[in-house]
Amino acid sequence: MLETCIARVRERAPLIHNITNYVTINDVANALLACGASPIMSDDPEDIEEITSRCAGLNLNLGTLHMRTIDAMFAAGRRSNALGHVVTMDPVGVGASSLRLRTALSLLHELRLDAIRGNASEIRALARGAGPSRGVDVSAADTVTEENLETMTDFVRDFAAHTGVIVALTGALDLVADGRTCYVIRNGRPEMGRVTGTGCQLSGLLAAFLAANPERKLEAAAAAVCTMGVAGEVAFSHLRPEEGNATYRNRIIDAIFHMDEDTLRARARYEIRTR
Amino acid sequence: MLETCIARVRERAPLIHNITNYVTINDVANALLACGASPIMSDDPEDIEEITSRCAGLNLNLGTLHMRTIDAMFAAGRRSNALGHVVTMDPVGVGASSLRLRTALSLLHELRLDAIRGNASEIRALARGAGPSRGVDVSAADTVTEENLETMTDFVRDFAAHTGVIVALTGALDLVADGRTCYVIRNGRPEMGRVTGTGCQLSGLLAAFLAANPERKLEAAAAAVCTMGVAGEVAFSHLRPEEGNATYRNRIIDAIFHMDEDTLRARARYEIRTR
Amino acid sequence: MLETCIARVRERAPLIHNITNYVTINDVANALLACGASPIMSDDPEDIEEITSRCAGLNLNLGTLHMRTIDAMFAAGRRSNALGHVVTMDPVGVGASSLRLRTALSLLHELRLDAIRGNASEIRALARGAGPSRGVDVSAADTVTEENLETMTDFVRDFAAHTGVIVALTGALDLVADGRTCYVIRNGRPEMGRVTGTGCQLSGLLAAFLAANPERKLEAAAAAVCTMGVAGEVAFSHLRPEEGNATYRNRIIDAIFHMDEDTLRARARYEIRTR
Repeated sequence: MLETCIARVRERAPLIHNITNYVTINDVANALLACGASPIMSDDPEDIEEITSRCAGLNLNLGTLHMRTIDAMFAAGRRSNALGHVVTMDPVGVGASSLRLRTALSLLHELRLDAIRGNASEIRALARGAGPSRGVDVSAADTVTEENLETMTDFVRDFAAHTGVIVALTGALDLVADGRTCYVIRNGRPEMGRVTGTGCQLSGLLAAFLAANPERKLEAAAAAVCTMGVAGEVAFSHLRPEEGNATYRNRIIDAIFHMDEDTLRARARYEIRTR
Repeated sequence: MLETCIARVRERAPLIHNITNYVTINDVANALLACGASPIMSDDPEDIEEITSRCAGLNLNLGTLHMRTIDAMFAAGRRSNALGHVVTMDPVGVGASSLRLRTALSLLHELRLDAIRGNASEIRALARGAGPSRGVDVSAADTVTEENLETMTDFVRDFAAHTGVIVALTGALDLVADGRTCYVIRNGRPEMGRVTGTGCQLSGLLAAFLAANPERKLEAAAAAVCTMGVAGEVAFSHLRPEEGNATYRNRIIDAIFHMDEDTLRARARYEIRTR
Repeated sequence: MLETCIARVRERAPLIHNITNYVTINDVANALLACGASPIMSDDPEDIEEITSRCAGLNLNLGTLHMRTIDAMFAAGRRSNALGHVVTMDPVGVGASSLRLRTALSLLHELRLDAIRGNASEIRALARGAGPSRGVDVSAADTVTEENLETMTDFVRDFAAHTGVIVALTGALDLVADGRTCYVIRNGRPEMGRVTGTGCQLSGLLAAFLAANPERKLEAAAAAVCTMGVAGEVAFSHLRPEEGNATYRNRIIDAIFHMDEDTLRARARYEIRTR
């Protein structure tokens, strides 16, 4: 079923407002264009409310976080919440920086977020920061493996339940969960970790997929994660021996550009665990 | 005749100062290098006048506009004007943001600009903002088609006449006009709209082509627009079935890299309408 | 011997903190990933000390320098010095801007830098700025040629001796020197100058190679320069006739991705001049 989500992105072509880091911003823009959405970037406090009002979704990314963009994130987030737009957060580096962790926790508490995407250590740092009183077992591991899958599935579901936010924990195995249901996704290639910004691109897709499929957000989030993973596999199959991570970067976006329902149906590998 | 403009860019290798958005800045730099020019980027108020003084042209781009870069734009613009350098403006997103529209109008009024490049809605927003007293009919459409071509041609010529600035309105059909003459250009591919920054790259080329051909600026502006359109066509012809917008991005810049007088002569499709 | 340095980078996978310009930052990140290191970017004063503490090296790049990032550079540099981490500097544009020159000289005086990489005019501007009392003959040329090789070799060794910093002066011929020994490297392609950011990427590699080979920094610096030059040659050999600087950019990073001891041993062309 999640395969139909991408067709909706292409049909509705949601405009996504990105407040994101300046390392991977160009790739986020091209990834959004590739999936059928449109990107717009603005982070000046004077500009932000007007821009975000014209959009269907807001993608907040904490890489290269600045004091001056934090205000912009809150202002855009509040405006998007008031308008009922989708808001997603990518807490890049919250495991390594108090400023980022503090900001991510404030965004999580003060805004109504629809989804968060991060790797295991980022999601764990967020869950820890959210405090033990919230009842989430944060003895989570740094990666998801077949061995710790049940523990990690419980962890993301608990965190999603306590925050009311869809959690996408991505890595070798990807988990996408709300408080009850967890998609376990086995797409992607380890080589994607050698390309800067594949996580940021996925967070952009997440905002677009949710904005275009508001009536089935969990499915849309899982579809975004499958799209990125399948794109990584398709792209890898097109690499020539002399090509490396720079060409792989382009081929991944190219594969998103060509992604459709049929490809997703044939290649998406996921199971759904409900409690 | 416009075909010879690119040879002059390669001969003179103008150094272009860019104050531009951080989404597409790398592509602007590579597009400038591809056409034979050299890029330099600086937007700190303390740095700007010295940098711009060493250049032959200044490219102001309002994407991801910040309060702090606005001052830099005015300072660099005034210095470039004082030195008689070419100054171009790309009013990215002026249709969607009051801050950007206000800034674009101030730049238009307070600086002596040589050329402006935008899509139909950006140019229309600018013309509207410039006020009805200026006598421009701003009931312009959102795209240029064969049907509204005469109206739109009049519109850009009127706007150019009232501002004294060359206007390049680009889209499915491109119009490049001063107050009297309008080039109607039919190059390019619709798929270019799926690559972020092709407009920003073209604005960079515009500054380079004008700086290298100061004695024939309108022709140079039309040559820049033809170069980008033909590059889009050549690049598209080299795309393999599995390639998408990321590879297309690279192939467009590659095609600019190889663009020469002969290719332009063979492939540029334009007519000149004079009143 | 220098060929073994790259294996150490891949083994140790140093995390490199980059405070760098927003034109080429994505390429720097992908080049670092390509050589086996990991990049992290942060330039907010509140974030910087914590981030840099977790890293093995710090890469300071003065392109698009801002007043607000200058403080971040000093804070990160001092912290890295306190922790004994590698610190490198790329004085982009110091020949064209007093702000950048002033900042580069302050960084050079107030921090303990391990290496500086720049082109001939940047290194010469730095040497001039460092003052005549320092005893460096700064009548250096703008490029290194076979004709002025001895003079230039003396120049970089003198500058390295007076500053106590490894100096990598790169161009058609590359010189990598400490006060006593100078590597003269004859790798690379002139076409690399048509790709924006190859110098910035090399400065990133420099930080990674030194961080992974702290016991032989001069050799590591020469290995980084050879890696970039050989990558430029390998990449060029894979270019198809219709491909230009944008694809070349990707192929260079791809070639870094595949670089190994054997390729370096077969292709690195250098001699060592000791006084």
